[in-house]
Formats: sequence, structure tokens, C-alpha cells
Amino acid sequence: MTLTSEDKKIILDSIRDIPDFPKPGIIFKDITTLLSTPDAFNTLMTHLENRYESYDLDYVAGIDARGFIFGSILADRLGVGFVPVRKKGKLPYTTVAEKYSLEYGFDEVEIHIDAFGEKEDPKVLLIDDLIATGGTAKAAANLIDKVGANCVEACFIMELAFLNGRQGFDAPVYSVLEID
Amino acid sequence: MTLTSEDKKIILDSIRDIPDFPKPGIIFKDITTLLSTPDAFNTLMTHLENRYESYDLDYVAGIDARGFIFGSILADRLGVGFVPVRKKGKLPYTTVAEKYSLEYGFDEVEIHIDAFGEKEDPKVLLIDDLIATGGTAKAAANLIDKVGANCVEACFIMELAFLNGRQGFDAPVYSVLEID
Repeated sequence: MTLTSEDKKIILDSIRDIPDFPKPGIIFKDITTLLSTPDAFNTLMTHLENRYESYDLDYVAGIDARGFIFGSILADRLGVGFVPVRKKGKLPYTTVAEKYSLEYGFDEVEIHIDAFGEKEDPKVLLIDDLIATGGTAKAAANLIDKVGANCVEACFIMELAFLNGRQGFDAPVYSVLEID
Repeated sequence: MTLTSEDKKIILDSIRDIPDFPKPGIIFKDITTLLSTPDAFNTLMTHLENRYESYDLDYVAGIDARGFIFGSILADRLGVGFVPVRKKGKLPYTTVAEKYSLEYGFDEVEIHIDAFGEKEDPKVLLIDDLIATGGTAKAAANLIDKVGANCVEACFIMELAFLNGRQGFDAPVYSVLEID
């Protein structure tokens, strides 16, 4: 199911550029204007629903915090469970953690050890709003594998393709919009 | 639209108690087990959808980060925009901020100054997973008013009723489950 160039334009036009956030020289892609525009947001979510309804997913896993928005709606539309991947210290039960490098230092994401229940090798889609270098998302994909599930694809609304963040994923990577 | 005691039980049974999180003596209500159980999660979201479809809402506003999950699904089901209320420093455009007291010190939430678009006095539902003392949610409701919208109700999946957090809201407060 391909996104038409018209639908792509509807989605892209609803995303706002914020220069110099979070620091000088960065143009931040503000998706809050997409979220508050029902036509554009529905166009995006219907595209994702159509793409993934044939995947026979068991869960959608979303990355803290903007990934929660896209991931939970997609899980609801597909009738599957939603699993949060969170920053360290936020999940209350026993977790598995994975570190990843930042420009300076490192950060860490966690998942509940029993996040995907009892089923053997459940199929999980990982989702976040944006992939830059992909550090967080690769750590999240590793966590899904570590707790015994199968990350069948990593999905992003936007991809900063020039950063080549999709390199190094074991799972296929799908992005709705490539950003130059 | 009242929630049947059977449906209430389905939702409640899917929420897990975690003793001594985030600190000794607190029993944390873990909703990740609700999110990963499609039947229970769908029962909850259908209840909220039924309750709010007659409210003629313009937006659903969710509080960072668990409120994003319930809020975005509800906005999607109702076909209205979703607006995030975030912790300080997370929103990229011009914001309005509101401080609220914690046990020691204070914290701050923010909303985009143009979060609710151009419409005069738009109707907004505020949603979060849990109300304890209500500090964050009251600050969030104030932010909605400050940027020219109308917070028509504050909705919570769980209410720690003994903390009386609903006191001091200008808007009506609705909670799905009361927790002793």
C-alpha cells in the first residue's frame, strides 16, 4: 500500500519547521501541528493501518514519548496490544535495559521483562516519530529481541536519510517521509 | 453511558499493583498490562468514546507521557485533534508554562501557545492515566484556559479518591475507576 504523493503532501504540510531547536543549527520537525489537524493525522494513521493490517502483528511497541502517540493509535486500530519502551526509571516492574551512545555520553531505554506475554515469538512492530542516527530505536529493537519477541519492522513517520540511521538494524526499516 | 460492573472488573483486573514503586510504601498502578491486553484496553477506550461522542469536542489534550496513550486514541476515535501537554523544555515552539507544587519543590508543564488553532473558545477534554493530588492536571487545565480554550472536563482512568485531588478544578472531573 503506497502513500500517494497527494497524501504525502497533506501530511508533510501539517508538520512545522522550528529553526534552532533544541540547539542552534538544528531544524526541528514539529509534529504537534500534525496531531492537531485531524484530516492530516487520519491520512497518516490510515496509511499505517493499511500497511500493517497484513503483517499479523501481536503488538505495537512505541518509544517514549512521541512514539506513544502513533503507536497506541495504530495498536488500537489493529486490535493488538501496545507496549511502551521507556527512558530509564519510568517503568515500575522488572525491566531489561539497553544503553546507546549520544553525541556526548550515553542514554538508556528499558522494557518490561514480561512486556509481550506468554506467546512464543510474538510479532512486534516498533514505532517512533523520527529516525536520526537511530541510536534509541536500535536499542529499543534490541530490547524487543532480548525479551523473546520478534521485531518484524521498525517504522518512523520521518527519516533524516542523510544521517543513514537505518544502517545497523536487523529488522527492515520503513519511513513514511524522507526529510532532506 | 455508565460502565457496567463487569466491564469495570475487566479493566481493573488488567491493571497490575507494583509495591514500593517509585518509593517504599507506594503501591504503583501499572497500566502497561492494561495496554498490552487488547480486550481490556478496547473495553476502556470504547467506554470513553461512548461517553465523549456527545460532548462535541474540538480537541483532546493528554498529559506527558501516559496521558498521550489514552488521549491520542480517544482523539483518533472521535476524529478530533490531539494536543500534548508536556514537561518543561520538550515543546519546540513558543509555549505557555505553569508551575505546580511537588512534595518537595515544584515542577512545570507547558503547552504551545497556538495549540488549539484559530477557532473561538474550542472545547477541550483533558486526559491523564491517574489523578493523585491533581497538581499536574490542575496546572494543565489552567494552561488550556490560558491559551484561550475551554477545558470542558478532566478525565482520568484511575482516581486515588482519598487524596481528594478533584478539589480545586474549575472543570468537572470524571474518573473511570476509583482506587482505595
